[in-house]
Amino acid sequence: MGQINRELMRRDAPIGVFDSGVGGLTVAREIMRQIPNEKIIYFGDTARVPYGSKSRETVTRYAEQIVRFLRSFQVKTIVVACNTASAYAIHKLEQETDIPIIGVVKPGARTAINATRNGRIGVIATEATISSQMYTRYIRELNDGVTIYEKACPLFVPLVEEGLWEDPVTDEIARRYLTELIDIGIDTLILGCTHYPLIRSTLGRIIGKDVTLVNPAYETALELRQMLSDNDMLNQDPPGLGSNKYQFYVSDKAEKFVRFANSIIKYGILSAKTVNIEEV
Amino acid sequence: MGQINRELMRRDAPIGVFDSGVGGLTVAREIMRQIPNEKIIYFGDTARVPYGSKSRETVTRYAEQIVRFLRSFQVKTIVVACNTASAYAIHKLEQETDIPIIGVVKPGARTAINATRNGRIGVIATEATISSQMYTRYIRELNDGVTIYEKACPLFVPLVEEGLWEDPVTDEIARRYLTELIDIGIDTLILGCTHYPLIRSTLGRIIGKDVTLVNPAYETALELRQMLSDNDMLNQDPPGLGSNKYQFYVSDKAEKFVRFANSIIKYGILSAKTVNIEEV
Repeated sequence: MGQINRELMRRDAPIGVFDSGVGGLTVAREIMRQIPNEKIIYFGDTARVPYGSKSRETVTRYAEQIVRFLRSFQVKTIVVACNTASAYAIHKLEQETDIPIIGVVKPGARTAINATRNGRIGVIATEATISSQMYTRYIRELNDGVTIYEKACPLFVPLVEEGLWEDPVTDEIARRYLTELIDIGIDTLILGCTHYPLIRSTLGRIIGKDVTLVNPAYETALELRQMLSDNDMLNQDPPGLGSNKYQFYVSDKAEKFVRFANSIIKYGILSAKTVNIEEV
Repeated sequence: MGQINRELMRRDAPIGVFDSGVGGLTVAREIMRQIPNEKIIYFGDTARVPYGSKSRETVTRYAEQIVRFLRSFQVKTIVVACNTASAYAIHKLEQETDIPIIGVVKPGARTAINATRNGRIGVIATEATISSQMYTRYIRELNDGVTIYEKACPLFVPLVEEGLWEDPVTDEIARRYLTELIDIGIDTLILGCTHYPLIRSTLGRIIGKDVTLVNPAYETALELRQMLSDNDMLNQDPPGLGSNKYQFYVSDKAEKFVRFANSIIKYGILSAKTVNIEEV
């Protein structure tokens, strides 16, 4: 991590959270649950979604633009609530930034190691996250006795975005993607894309009840709380009324985003603002 | 159309063709077949694909950036080989540009009118193209006696991009999207997205052999040839060896693009160059 400048971390400052689109809302939701006093500025890059089929260079450039945008709100920390951006860009973002940056890959890797009993861990994610091999690398750093089986599942994001959360087509696609992981005998499966918790029950049904599903969103919120607590940076008081506790920004299609957001988060999101992220 | 400056249209200049990604290659393929003496500069916006779920403003901004890029090659005309960009941006592009701009929507609309016998035309396309209602508008302008039934099919693009051209899942999704069009009794179906010709046989099987499938790519190449001929701007001689007859540019993932392109176009595409389209 680059040199952290604690002067920049005001306790009552908001937390920046971003994703390529709506998937990161599953992480925002966990933060809202676990540290309800915190303010959040969420950015979803809906003009350039999805990231999962794009290259390291492109995803990193997009993430850097978004970090610049979030910093304009004097956020005290930034959560990269997107596995692809975490896998490709987090080292560079850490080097370039003087506030803490938290990704979703490391917390997910740690939980999986604690969960596995037979040492066989499966990872499902986008093409980009899988080809980065970041989960394998993090898990190996922590414990080189486990074996990791990675599998790209490129159709899950469009299926989730089309709302086919419970659908025979999603079942069939899940069966194709998961069969080899079942045959290998994994006992732990990391949901390595923030969209996947939304089809958790389908995935659980197909993979079988003996496999533990790891949702990195939960552990990421836990790590965030710990980091803020260690730095004495937790917000002590609930933000007052009218303080815009949760603010949402997108690069396109604000209305569609709000509809989707309200199906994930139960706080009654009224609006999202559109910004031209290329020119921020 | 804005004022066309014929001085800018050199006969041996290339034709610019663009799409959000690989779909427009079905249009480039038709141009290669029908006017084989022409040079082509193709741009696929693979860093920001897909366009079909994005807004008019965003798609128009992207199209304007690409037109600037293609003009740097002194192209004599530009083919918008993407239904979404044609539907959303073509009027603005025509106003802003002094070379001819050809979209895929108008030629497709014209062919459908000639093909229908019972006056019931179906259009399948991305969410964006359908919500623009451009097909309905063009068809009505030409013949207000026909009825048009439009249907957004958002999962077809990811299914095509994943290579599931012949697959039970694609059959099932096609059945869901097409059932209401079958029940209505359309006799003509416009494939209103440049990806769809790649699943033409699936679509034909599901919709039944009494329905005529209209592929706007074919008619667009025909219109292009006619326009060039009317302006005495057809290239008279085949480009010499080493003249880079077909050049491909993308905003991301050149290798993946080349693999896909070679499955569509049989000319043996060796390479594609990556450009940062946001900064052109």
